[in-house]
Amino acid sequence: MNQHNQQFKKIDNQDIAFFRKVVGDAFVLTHSEALTNYAKDETPDETLRHLPEVVVKPKTVEEIQKIMRYCFEKSIPVTPRGAGSGLSGGAIPAQGGVILSLERMNRILEIDCENFIVVVEPGVITNEINRKLKEFGLFYAGYPMSLETCQIGGNIAENAGGGKAVKYGVTGHYVRGLEIVTSWGEVLCFGGKTQKDVTGYDILHLLVGSEGTLAIVTKIYLRVLPRPRERAVLLCPFSSIEAALRTPWLIMGELGVVPAAIELMSRQSLEFAYQYCDSTYPFQEAPCHLLVEIDGQSEEEVFSVYRLIGEKLLAEGAQEVFVADESSSAEEIWKIRRAIPEAIHQTLPLEINEDVSLPLAALQDFVRFIELLSKENNLLAPFYGHLGDGNLHVTLAPLKSAGWETLEPELRKKFYQEVKRLGGALTGEHGVGLKRKEYLPLFLGPAELRLLHKIKQVFDPKGILNPGKIFPEQVTPKE
Amino acid sequence: MNQHNQQFKKIDNQDIAFFRKVVGDAFVLTHSEALTNYAKDETPDETLRHLPEVVVKPKTVEEIQKIMRYCFEKSIPVTPRGAGSGLSGGAIPAQGGVILSLERMNRILEIDCENFIVVVEPGVITNEINRKLKEFGLFYAGYPMSLETCQIGGNIAENAGGGKAVKYGVTGHYVRGLEIVTSWGEVLCFGGKTQKDVTGYDILHLLVGSEGTLAIVTKIYLRVLPRPRERAVLLCPFSSIEAALRTPWLIMGELGVVPAAIELMSRQSLEFAYQYCDSTYPFQEAPCHLLVEIDGQSEEEVFSVYRLIGEKLLAEGAQEVFVADESSSAEEIWKIRRAIPEAIHQTLPLEINEDVSLPLAALQDFVRFIELLSKENNLLAPFYGHLGDGNLHVTLAPLKSAGWETLEPELRKKFYQEVKRLGGALTGEHGVGLKRKEYLPLFLGPAELRLLHKIKQVFDPKGILNPGKIFPEQVTPKE
Repeated sequence: MNQHNQQFKKIDNQDIAFFRKVVGDAFVLTHSEALTNYAKDETPDETLRHLPEVVVKPKTVEEIQKIMRYCFEKSIPVTPRGAGSGLSGGAIPAQGGVILSLERMNRILEIDCENFIVVVEPGVITNEINRKLKEFGLFYAGYPMSLETCQIGGNIAENAGGGKAVKYGVTGHYVRGLEIVTSWGEVLCFGGKTQKDVTGYDILHLLVGSEGTLAIVTKIYLRVLPRPRERAVLLCPFSSIEAALRTPWLIMGELGVVPAAIELMSRQSLEFAYQYCDSTYPFQEAPCHLLVEIDGQSEEEVFSVYRLIGEKLLAEGAQEVFVADESSSAEEIWKIRRAIPEAIHQTLPLEINEDVSLPLAALQDFVRFIELLSKENNLLAPFYGHLGDGNLHVTLAPLKSAGWETLEPELRKKFYQEVKRLGGALTGEHGVGLKRKEYLPLFLGPAELRLLHKIKQVFDPKGILNPGKIFPEQVTPKE
Repeated sequence: MNQHNQQFKKIDNQDIAFFRKVVGDAFVLTHSEALTNYAKDETPDETLRHLPEVVVKPKTVEEIQKIMRYCFEKSIPVTPRGAGSGLSGGAIPAQGGVILSLERMNRILEIDCENFIVVVEPGVITNEINRKLKEFGLFYAGYPMSLETCQIGGNIAENAGGGKAVKYGVTGHYVRGLEIVTSWGEVLCFGGKTQKDVTGYDILHLLVGSEGTLAIVTKIYLRVLPRPRERAVLLCPFSSIEAALRTPWLIMGELGVVPAAIELMSRQSLEFAYQYCDSTYPFQEAPCHLLVEIDGQSEEEVFSVYRLIGEKLLAEGAQEVFVADESSSAEEIWKIRRAIPEAIHQTLPLEINEDVSLPLAALQDFVRFIELLSKENNLLAPFYGHLGDGNLHVTLAPLKSAGWETLEPELRKKFYQEVKRLGGALTGEHGVGLKRKEYLPLFLGPAELRLLHKIKQVFDPKGILNPGKIFPEQVTPKE
C-alpha cells in the first residue's frame, strides 16, 4: 500500500453545505483569497505552498467529530492547523481537502493550582498560558521561542522545544493528558490530572510530535511548575566559536550547574538581528555570543550561580560577561535572540534553513563542516540556537542567486549526510513535515519506517489525516 | 480476534536443542527447580505464579534475534525478564513458553561524559549505573526505590518512577535511545546520543512502559545529569495526615520550591519498617512522617531552602523537623523508607497492595476513604509513597484471615472505583501486568483499549510477546 497514491475525493458543493451546517456559514471559507492564507506556514521555501479546497473552523469537539466522521466516510483529506507558525510545512494541506483550523478553540478551560495542572484548548496562544499563570506564581515551562504567535496545539503536534529545554525539557515533558478525535470521528481520552500514570501504553507521547498525522487534539492537560522568582541572563561575546562550543560541558560538567538556557548566536546571526531591530551592540567582531539564563527562587542563589558561570566563561574564552538581572533587560536580550530567524529570512530570502540536533561532542566537527561548506560554495552561513541541547539552526544562503536551484538540493544532501555521520537527528524541534520527508530514510532504516507506517495505519486507516507529511513518497511498506 | 485464546505451541526437545545451540547448554534451564525461580516476581499475590517451560539466557542481540525468529515462526510465547523485582506480575510467564532472561546482558557499554549519555545493556543493576557515574560527577536521575536489586531493562519496561520523580521525573524522561528486537526478530534502533529529536513518531516513549509486550529492549541510551553536590533530608513527624497531605502545595505552590522528594509514611508503615530494621524512632505516635529531600550545588543553597521548608512545615503541622545533611544520615532515613514494602509484606502476608496515582488535591478524600474502608472491614491499612507526585502505595490487610478470599475482590473493586471517581490512575509506576489487567476497563474505555490493542498487533502480530499481560481477558476488539 502506498498512502500517497490513493485517490482522495475532491470537495464539492454538497460537502461545503455539510460543513456550513456543522460549524455555521461564517466559519467555512472557500474564497481563493481566504484559502491563500492557509496555503503556507513560516517555512521560507516558496515551493512548499498548497491551497486547501476549504477552510473549516470548528468551535467544539462535537463539531470536529461530525467533520471527521464525514471526511472519513468520503475519503476527504483533513489537515489540522494552529497558528501556521511552523517551520516544516506541517500545517500545509499538501493534498488539498479541508484545513481544519483550530483557531476558535482558544479557551483556557481551567487553571487548577492545587494540582499544578492547566487545561487548555489547542488554539490558545502559548504565551497566553503563562500570562494567565503569572498571577498564581506558576508557569508552563515547555514553551518554544515563537511563544507570542504559536498555539499550544501546534506545539503538541511538533513536540516543540525552546530556549529553556536544557533545564526544563520540551513540550512533551509537560503533557499529562489529551482528548483527541480520531480520523474516524471517535473521541478518546488519555491521562488527566495525575503526575504519574503507567496505565497501558504511553499514547500521550506517541501523539505529541505526530504532526497532526495521527489524530486531532481537542483538549490538553499541561503540568505547570512554580514560577522561578529570580532570573539573570548573561550575554557573553566569545573570542572563538570552538571555545563557545565547549561551554555546555564547562557549565554542566565542570561546574555541575544546569542553567535554564545556553544559546549560541554566530556573528552573522547577531548582525542581522541587530540590524532588523535597528539597534547596535558591543563586541560586534566576536565570532559568536552566548546567552546563558539562570533562574532560581532567591536572588542570592541566582547571583552565586551566575558569578560562578561568569568567572568560568571569562577564563575560557568569553571576552566580556554582561549581566541582565532585571526582567526588562533580560527580555531585551531574548528579544534580539528571538528576532534572529525573521532577520535572517528578511536579509536572505534564498536559503536552506535547518534544525539539526547533534550529540554535544559533535558540534565542533559540525561547525567546521559548515564553515568549509560555505567557503567552498560561496555561501553565507549564519547559525544560532539551543547550544545546551546540541540543537542548532543553520542557514545556508548563496551570495548570488544564479545556480541556486541546482546547488540547493546538493547542499542539503551533503548537509544531512554529515549530520547523520556525526550521530545527529534530522530535526530537533521543527518536525519532518513536508520539508524534510525525503530525507527521513537517511535517519530511519526501512524496518523503522515500516513500523512508523503501521502505527500511522492504526490511527488513520484511510490516510486522510494530514496526508503527504513525514513519510517519504517512495515508502512502500512490506505487508 | 482474542489474543488470549490463541493456541501457542508447547515446547519440545527440538526447541530446547535449538535454544542450546544458540546460547550454549549452560544458559538453557529446564529443571523444575530452576524454573520455579522464574515463576514469580515480587508481587505478594501467590495466585500470580506461572512456570515457564524453559529459561533462556542470551548474551547478545544476535542470539535474541535467533530466538525471536524461531519463536515467531513456531508461535512460542516469550516473556522477557530482568531482576524479577516487579510488583505487577509483569515478568511472570503467564502462558508458559520461554522466559528470556536478560541477566547476562549486564554491561555498561559506554559512559560518554561529553554528551551526558550512558549506554547500557538491559540487565545492568540500576544502582550500578550511579556507582560508576559518581566518579565523573554525573548521575542517572530516573532510578526507582528498588535501585539495589532492579535492572534498568525492567525500569524501562515499567517506566519506573521513584523517590525523586518530583524534581527529576520518571525513567522515560531519561531514555534518549533504544535498540530493540521485534517479535519477528528484526533489530530496530530509535534515537541515540542527541538530547532532542523529533524525527518521526516518538517510538521511544511508546516502548518505555510497554511491559515487555511490544519488543525486547537490548540497548539503552540514558541521559545523565550533573550530580548534585549537596543534599539534605528532612524527617518530619506530623500531628495530622490532613496537614501532611497539604505539604506539596505549601512547598511547591507557596514557597515555589521543587524538592527532589516529598515522601509520606503513615504511622503503621513506619512501625513495621522500624521493627523490620530493628530500630526505634521518636514521635512514634505521629499519624505520619514526611521525608523531604532537597539537593543543590552548594551548601548555602541547600541550607537556605531546607530552612525555608522546615519553618513552613513547623508552622503547618510538623511536630519536629529532623535534618540529615550528611550523606550517611540521609541514607539512614531513606533506608527505613525503602524497607517499608518488605516490612509490610513480612508482617501482613495476606494483603492487597496497590499503587495509585491521584491528582494531588484528591489525596484528602482518598485517605478518608481508606480510613473508612479499613474501619468498616476490620483492616490494617498502612500507606506510604511519593506524596509529591500524588503516587501512594496502599496496603489493605485483614486482621483475621477468615473470609479474605471473598472480601479481597470486593475491596479491590471498591478501591479502584474510588480511585477512578477521584480522577486517579490504575497504576502510577508498578504497571498493569498480570495483577491489574482485569481493572483496566475501569480506567480506559473500549475505544481506548481497542487502540492499544491495535498497537500491540503492530509490534506483535502473533501475540507471542509476554502474552496475558495488560489487556483484560474479555477484550475482543472490533476489527
